[in-house]
Amino acid sequence: MIAPVTADRLVKVTSQEYVAAARPDAEVTVVTLDKGPASIESRYEESLAAPGVVAKAVQAEKEGVQAVISECMGDPGVDAAREMVTIPVIGPAETSMHIAAMLGHRFSVVTILDRLIPALHDRATKTGLTGQLASIRAIGIPVLELDDHARLLRALIDQSVKAVEEDGAHVIILGCTGMAGLAREVEKGLKKRGIGDVPVIDPGILALKIAEALADMGLSHSKRTYPFPPQKEIIGY
Amino acid sequence: MIAPVTADRLVKVTSQEYVAAARPDAEVTVVTLDKGPASIESRYEESLAAPGVVAKAVQAEKEGVQAVISECMGDPGVDAAREMVTIPVIGPAETSMHIAAMLGHRFSVVTILDRLIPALHDRATKTGLTGQLASIRAIGIPVLELDDHARLLRALIDQSVKAVEEDGAHVIILGCTGMAGLAREVEKGLKKRGIGDVPVIDPGILALKIAEALADMGLSHSKRTYPFPPQKEIIGY
Amino acid sequence: MIAPVTADRLVKVTSQEYVAAARPDAEVTVVTLDKGPASIESRYEESLAAPGVVAKAVQAEKEGVQAVISECMGDPGVDAAREMVTIPVIGPAETSMHIAAMLGHRFSVVTILDRLIPALHDRATKTGLTGQLASIRAIGIPVLELDDHARLLRALIDQSVKAVEEDGAHVIILGCTGMAGLAREVEKGLKKRGIGDVPVIDPGILALKIAEALADMGLSHSKRTYPFPPQKEIIGY
Amino acid sequence: MIAPVTADRLVKVTSQEYVAAARPDAEVTVVTLDKGPASIESRYEESLAAPGVVAKAVQAEKEGVQAVISECMGDPGVDAAREMVTIPVIGPAETSMHIAAMLGHRFSVVTILDRLIPALHDRATKTGLTGQLASIRAIGIPVLELDDHARLLRALIDQSVKAVEEDGAHVIILGCTGMAGLAREVEKGLKKRGIGDVPVIDPGILALKIAEALADMGLSHSKRTYPFPPQKEIIGY
Amino acid sequence: MIAPVTADRLVKVTSQEYVAAARPDAEVTVVTLDKGPASIESRYEESLAAPGVVAKAVQAEKEGVQAVISECMGDPGVDAAREMVTIPVIGPAETSMHIAAMLGHRFSVVTILDRLIPALHDRATKTGLTGQLASIRAIGIPVLELDDHARLLRALIDQSVKAVEEDGAHVIILGCTGMAGLAREVEKGLKKRGIGDVPVIDPGILALKIAEALADMGLSHSKRTYPFPPQKEIIGY
Amino acid sequence: MIAPVTADRLVKVTSQEYVAAARPDAEVTVVTLDKGPASIESRYEESLAAPGVVAKAVQAEKEGVQAVISECMGDPGVDAAREMVTIPVIGPAETSMHIAAMLGHRFSVVTILDRLIPALHDRATKTGLTGQLASIRAIGIPVLELDDHARLLRALIDQSVKAVEEDGAHVIILGCTGMAGLAREVEKGLKKRGIGDVPVIDPGILALKIAEALADMGLSHSKRTYPFPPQKEIIGY
Repeated sequence: MIAPVTADRLVKVTSQEYVAAARPDAEVTVVTLDKGPASIESRYEESLAAPGVVAKAVQAEKEGVQAVISECMGDPGVDAAREMVTIPVIGPAETSMHIAAMLGHRFSVVTILDRLIPALHDRATKTGLTGQLASIRAIGIPVLELDDHARLLRALIDQSVKAVEEDGAHVIILGCTGMAGLAREVEKGLKKRGIGDVPVIDPGILALKIAEALADMGLSHSKRTYPFPPQKEIIGY
Repeated sequence: MIAPVTADRLVKVTSQEYVAAARPDAEVTVVTLDKGPASIESRYEESLAAPGVVAKAVQAEKEGVQAVISECMGDPGVDAAREMVTIPVIGPAETSMHIAAMLGHRFSVVTILDRLIPALHDRATKTGLTGQLASIRAIGIPVLELDDHARLLRALIDQSVKAVEEDGAHVIILGCTGMAGLAREVEKGLKKRGIGDVPVIDPGILALKIAEALADMGLSHSKRTYPFPPQKEIIGY
Repeated sequence: MIAPVTADRLVKVTSQEYVAAARPDAEVTVVTLDKGPASIESRYEESLAAPGVVAKAVQAEKEGVQAVISECMGDPGVDAAREMVTIPVIGPAETSMHIAAMLGHRFSVVTILDRLIPALHDRATKTGLTGQLASIRAIGIPVLELDDHARLLRALIDQSVKAVEEDGAHVIILGCTGMAGLAREVEKGLKKRGIGDVPVIDPGILALKIAEALADMGLSHSKRTYPFPPQKEIIGY
Repeated sequence: MIAPVTADRLVKVTSQEYVAAARPDAEVTVVTLDKGPASIESRYEESLAAPGVVAKAVQAEKEGVQAVISECMGDPGVDAAREMVTIPVIGPAETSMHIAAMLGHRFSVVTILDRLIPALHDRATKTGLTGQLASIRAIGIPVLELDDHARLLRALIDQSVKAVEEDGAHVIILGCTGMAGLAREVEKGLKKRGIGDVPVIDPGILALKIAEALADMGLSHSKRTYPFPPQKEIIGY
Repeated sequence: MIAPVTADRLVKVTSQEYVAAARPDAEVTVVTLDKGPASIESRYEESLAAPGVVAKAVQAEKEGVQAVISECMGDPGVDAAREMVTIPVIGPAETSMHIAAMLGHRFSVVTILDRLIPALHDRATKTGLTGQLASIRAIGIPVLELDDHARLLRALIDQSVKAVEEDGAHVIILGCTGMAGLAREVEKGLKKRGIGDVPVIDPGILALKIAEALADMGLSHSKRTYPFPPQKEIIGY
Repeated sequence: MIAPVTADRLVKVTSQEYVAAARPDAEVTVVTLDKGPASIESRYEESLAAPGVVAKAVQAEKEGVQAVISECMGDPGVDAAREMVTIPVIGPAETSMHIAAMLGHRFSVVTILDRLIPALHDRATKTGLTGQLASIRAIGIPVLELDDHARLLRALIDQSVKAVEEDGAHVIILGCTGMAGLAREVEKGLKKRGIGDVPVIDPGILALKIAEALADMGLSHSKRTYPFPPQKEIIGY
């Protein structure tokens, strides 16, 4: 699992969630990038993170890892990395939108900042699932402040309630992998507010479980869609 | 796993495939219906199978089963059963289309008979994934003749080659759960024909792996989309 | 005309509306099912009703009936019945959505219960008309309480006004065939509320008029889309 | 029924078809324009025909006519006329696409000239039904040569067979109202070529039957979509 | 540039804006129609204007003009004129929607009257850009009252703020070419209301700049889409 | 204009084309990247080029440049760069698709290699224009061999003819900016093959002309869609 950031402290807590969620026979490692932004809150930062994600994916495959996850809701570097390896490369945004579309009539994504909405919407457009997208909402808390757990949870529940009542969401996707481990708590919060029938998806953990499933089946991305790039001179990487 | 047919012999071979594909800690049972058609090759037969699928799903939940699969590419009774239980009810068609859309640019479904194409296309329309659907092709062999293994495999490979070369498919979905266990063989056949870069999805086995993943996460369908039906008089069931 | 329910009292009033709406040279009969739910308010109940609708359609064709209607906004059994007969089988939901799309910029459906919205939305998706769908709204009154005429009418007008003013609807479809005969009254109610330019469609009666039109032209469903099912063993029906 | 052309001879034969198709209690009149093109084979000619269609629709409503049809597959003047009258104004292209979408999985339009394909496709886009459109094909015969009946019929059948076999059409729409009365003959021709399961729609006659149905119900276009234009100075009309 | 109206006073002010916006080496002339409506506020009036637009486009091409613009947000006569000439014929609505879609996540159109919304929406549907359309809003001021500059500007800013805050617009298109020259003022007004990050498009001026770009490149409309109409008798034009 | 490659020789010829195409009062400079791939033929290489494109765009804005173009049909770095500057950042793929959609019924892109088709298709999906996309075809010649002018031209014409005749294209987009300056020659070649009515778009030159148009109008991308990224620690750039 590749956390496409350079700030190690961001992945400390979430790493534990991933290890806890993995099957007993699955080994999960979370690595951060050598080069790139401290956190990802823009397409600019995604573009800086992508080359590092690819490098880590290539290295992981060499080390015998069976699947990698670009652990960020921007799915940074996912398409590029799929070209460079043959093991599955999972994007949490893409994966959680597909599974959410299977679980209910319409889903909403509750992300951190308004500024991320267009890029998340583009991702939904790419998957073809905009017809099932009820809304994308933001809680207004930047990544580096997500460790105020009570404030985060309250904001997530508030926006999830609005997504259900005002936008018609039947499923909620947590919109930042930095929220890993909170899905059940948000479900409980919704229940207290009278909404006991809406599942909440933790996209990083879902990505992990789908990675397990694909690895079990020996399924990976189509190399017809993601062929190896031609060999050529590359400067500076 | 509910095989929505009454012909027991149909599920003998495929049952073994499911058991083999399951995780060591997962127990898989395949049951057939008490009432319904011998096999499913029409919407009429789907409508006859649906009440039985629901009944079996209700029974399974009572017995502590954690997830059920309506083991047929028509996904018969899936929406109805989701209303009557709280455990996940998985449809192989819907599931394999979503995962195929994640694995490559476009996917094709290779089913048994031309007559099934409109219903499969409707299913793709419901998922929102028609933009990623390259084609639906048929091999022209009815369900009850699928046990001629060599003929089946040859026909599947022929149509898969056409899906790739003529329709632009980058991923193939086997279009009938009666083909369970053949995905790897079709991949090999494609490779021999010069197409080594196209994954082939076995929808029943994929449904099983996704069921395992959802059960692990405690995720199920939205009861806001699939609320319990009201209590009322029902005659004849 | 097949009322896919077992509660005879439900069809008493609506039958009169259909007879009154028919052309002088057309004979209309409303039959209920022998087996199935008292009323339809879920996909589960639709699945229980479908086999009965098919059986009644087959019988009707044998008796020389020229077209049948599955008189419910879930269009239960319509696809299956089209396979078993050659006469037109009309679904009120599908039909009213197509005609509404012709009559104005956008239409809304005003149905009985929130729980029916996802299935109605799926029906709109299947027709391809979601771009013209302004909204689906519910009045919160179950089928078996529709006989409180004043309450029903008030609720229909309230929701129709909201559909027009908040959702941008230019045409209203009554969302339950149990509301047969109320379209003109809802139009009058809208006029009193200052909305004199929005037509209201009675889906059951519209289905009847379209059935007459198709029968006149000798047009029916494509048997290439709805071929006769193969002969095979069926248990329990 | 307004034939939006100035060449009277074009409507002689088709008029008889409309009269024959009408219900005994319905009176059908076909009028041609005072000003406009001899026939319509371009968007330019449609633009010249539109003002005349509106004028004739206004006159028809004054004379007590209950519904008007712009008898051409370009639906010329339909939107404009709907603003100027309150009776239904029917476009054969729009109407036949909606009904075709109800009758089968996918439909094709077989028109006269390649040059009409983009405009017909735009019409399908406007209805929202491009997902159900298998193809638009042309027979390569201009309007003014449609009276060579044998040549016309042969060409229609040839292109209809291709629409079915190569494009996957399950329903055929005749793509020019000048072909009125030929639907049954094309169906017969298809049957001789082994395609006995594809209905053929005569768009002018269908428009007439839908006009009858709407008139019976007192339904017309939404004046919220098509409000009366403001009064103002108009030069030259 | 063809103003598809007969009221000369309407184009006096806007003409100056176009001349000012043109490149130094480009000559811009604004002509009005000989026949047609004083202003355009309905599809009826568009249909009356279209023949005149075509005639003026033909005349312009003969006089050596390199590109023509139908200066109205209904794009009247654009498709028809493209058939009759080989120089580019630009529609401000179509052009501004495409460019707006390039400049930001979603765009809104702020037009004059509610009654124009369906036709503008149809135009968006034809371009394929409804997924990027946030909303179409109206200021409730008819064309002939647009010369009250302060009232117009206030209303434009009010509706633009609502488009941004309530509908999620990131780009605004002025919805009537009679508003030419106001884009910068609306941007300033938005800035004062705290919205400094939303570009406002002046569709007539944009059409002019795109016309310059196409003329520079020698690019024009595809004559395969817009072939010359056949020669035939036309009465009354 | 930013050529997102490190191989200087690639931009020698095309630079001259851009200078020749620019308005007399416009100054065009083509710069290559300091770091990145020699040429771009994969999403991996796009990801390596993106950070360099952003850096060059930031530098260009500082130097007073009025608009920048990422001169590659992958539009690499375009979204990221729009966040970091306020001047327009133009992507040739996005721009040429929007303008092609305005010029004719359907367009095709003729690119260099099959492997680029999925990414180009994703770009079309993002624009919303897949309904107007006839096909994406490849000539099978890698970037670094594009300097065999005769071979390139022959291959472009061959595939363009197929796009028109087999896929129904009415407009052709050259699918690689390395083909700059060839549009008129391909048009001539099409004419010799009997296709004189299909415009061919040179995407780099079109991007330049649209940049001129936007700069003239003072229009740029919405900073609401592309806000400046937050300040934070970035390692390695």
